[in-house]
Amino acid sequence: MTETGEGRILLSMTGMNPRRWFDLLSKHREVVLEPDRADDPTIRYAMVWKHPRGVLARLPNLQAIFSVGAGVDHVFADSRLPDIPIARVVAQNLTQHMVEYVVWRVMDHHRQGAIYRAQQQRRVWHEPAQPVSSDVAVGIMGLGQLGRAAASQLLSIGFKVNGWSRNDRPMEGVATWHGKEGLTPFLNATDILVVLLPLTPATEAIIDLSILKRLRPDGPLGGPVLVNAGRGRLQKESDILAALEDGTLKEASLDVFETEPLPKTSPLWKHPSVFVTPHAAATSDPEHLVPLLLEQIERHERGEPLDNLVDRQSGY
Amino acid sequence: MTETGEGRILLSMTGMNPRRWFDLLSKHREVVLEPDRADDPTIRYAMVWKHPRGVLARLPNLQAIFSVGAGVDHVFADSRLPDIPIARVVAQNLTQHMVEYVVWRVMDHHRQGAIYRAQQQRRVWHEPAQPVSSDVAVGIMGLGQLGRAAASQLLSIGFKVNGWSRNDRPMEGVATWHGKEGLTPFLNATDILVVLLPLTPATEAIIDLSILKRLRPDGPLGGPVLVNAGRGRLQKESDILAALEDGTLKEASLDVFETEPLPKTSPLWKHPSVFVTPHAAATSDPEHLVPLLLEQIERHERGEPLDNLVDRQSGY
Repeated sequence: MTETGEGRILLSMTGMNPRRWFDLLSKHREVVLEPDRADDPTIRYAMVWKHPRGVLARLPNLQAIFSVGAGVDHVFADSRLPDIPIARVVAQNLTQHMVEYVVWRVMDHHRQGAIYRAQQQRRVWHEPAQPVSSDVAVGIMGLGQLGRAAASQLLSIGFKVNGWSRNDRPMEGVATWHGKEGLTPFLNATDILVVLLPLTPATEAIIDLSILKRLRPDGPLGGPVLVNAGRGRLQKESDILAALEDGTLKEASLDVFETEPLPKTSPLWKHPSVFVTPHAAATSDPEHLVPLLLEQIERHERGEPLDNLVDRQSGY
Repeated sequence: MTETGEGRILLSMTGMNPRRWFDLLSKHREVVLEPDRADDPTIRYAMVWKHPRGVLARLPNLQAIFSVGAGVDHVFADSRLPDIPIARVVAQNLTQHMVEYVVWRVMDHHRQGAIYRAQQQRRVWHEPAQPVSSDVAVGIMGLGQLGRAAASQLLSIGFKVNGWSRNDRPMEGVATWHGKEGLTPFLNATDILVVLLPLTPATEAIIDLSILKRLRPDGPLGGPVLVNAGRGRLQKESDILAALEDGTLKEASLDVFETEPLPKTSPLWKHPSVFVTPHAAATSDPEHLVPLLLEQIERHERGEPLDNLVDRQSGY
């Protein structure tokens, strides 16, 4: 336990168990789960996941905010943020998990897992036509750290890879488009759409019927596929269901939802063409992430700039 | 259509539709589906998949036998083979399909597809503990063309990769063992066993209970997994079922079976921990393979040795 003079860490989490984070951080720094009082002057750092809105602005000596995940939309959901640096976590472990999830879902759609599982139930021995990966185009929306790592792995498996991002982000071996005018040609060339965008006011509900209708309809998989591993509020679930109903979309793998946990009443649970995971594509693992967060604090205390700073303007 | 003087091709297939092969080959060479008479002297080449036993030995001018798949066990099932070169097909397309299948099945076991599908049926939002790929060891039995390509792809995804083969076949980044004495240490270090062995008298029924019992029991996936994409007669299905029953084995993905098509009466069809595909991991695609087979014939006619010759002694 260090002196409170060094500044305490506020660990503020909603919908995530703080226990392991608390134990690991406590070995090195003094940590609290809530301020002693609203204007607690001993708190210098905040590590947050969906913190209560307004709580950070009242802390007079707060110097930096750390998201314990790759996304920071949950931080910006608080409109009363103090004007101090905000950093997100970038960890090889998180990236590896996300790439695994994307490869897993892309391969299952590409290799027709749903058809084979249905056949097995009926004891049917039948081989559907199987395109090779080099005839299938995966389109990745969002070419940040995660999108680029996923693109690179999919290329190595043999897929054609397209990429779209807000600003031009060229990448070797990937056909890239950007901005509003790049969206339609990107979608037109894509069979499996993988969404890894940050959630910002500009991307909220971007995955709607009009986007899905622009995916390549006559590709080698017999219809386009959606994989969302970004954020639930990027998608309009009623539009995804409509697209599955009218044949615009063949299948979807969704790890994130407009409301989480996904309500029991959602028709997505029992839709035969939808694969649901509980926001588990790349879970923040305290064993891997706590050392990185402590390094960030040390960097700050040495007077160096933080890594992985978030741009308040763009929201990611 | 060329003159019969050049020598005709016998295309002899069982359990595989020869139509497309016949049409594609016929554009370049004269092809027959059976000899005009048992000792037909006009047949110079045989392209085969499970040909009727004894038929090739009677053809006086046969110069080479081509398997239209990567495996040649179906050729050697004929004990009366003429003493002429036998070649198997090695094609980028076949290799790519096989690597896709292996990545697909390994990812689905690694990312706990069976758990998530069961949870979705019950509308359960719950995240099981998820190891990262670098904590999971995939062991590949058979380090030929296909095994090495699969190993390389799994390494790039981040798995630990072990390899075993009859003779020493070192590979960068892969922990390799060989021969009888290498088998136990290889299995002891393996969480997901991927079988890509050729079927020979030495490997027949090699995947039995004693092999499965040597897989790492306390690995990060909560039990070992079997993936067989080689040949069905490499495995003892009664032993696989016993291993699943007593908890030796957690799950299996089987693309090949002792009897194919898998009989309707097999308990593998409805076993909740078994994923069945109909020998579809890497299907011989005539569009890709016919040009390679024609190249082989041209090579032979120029007096050059055939590619991908089979060693009659080892049987692969």
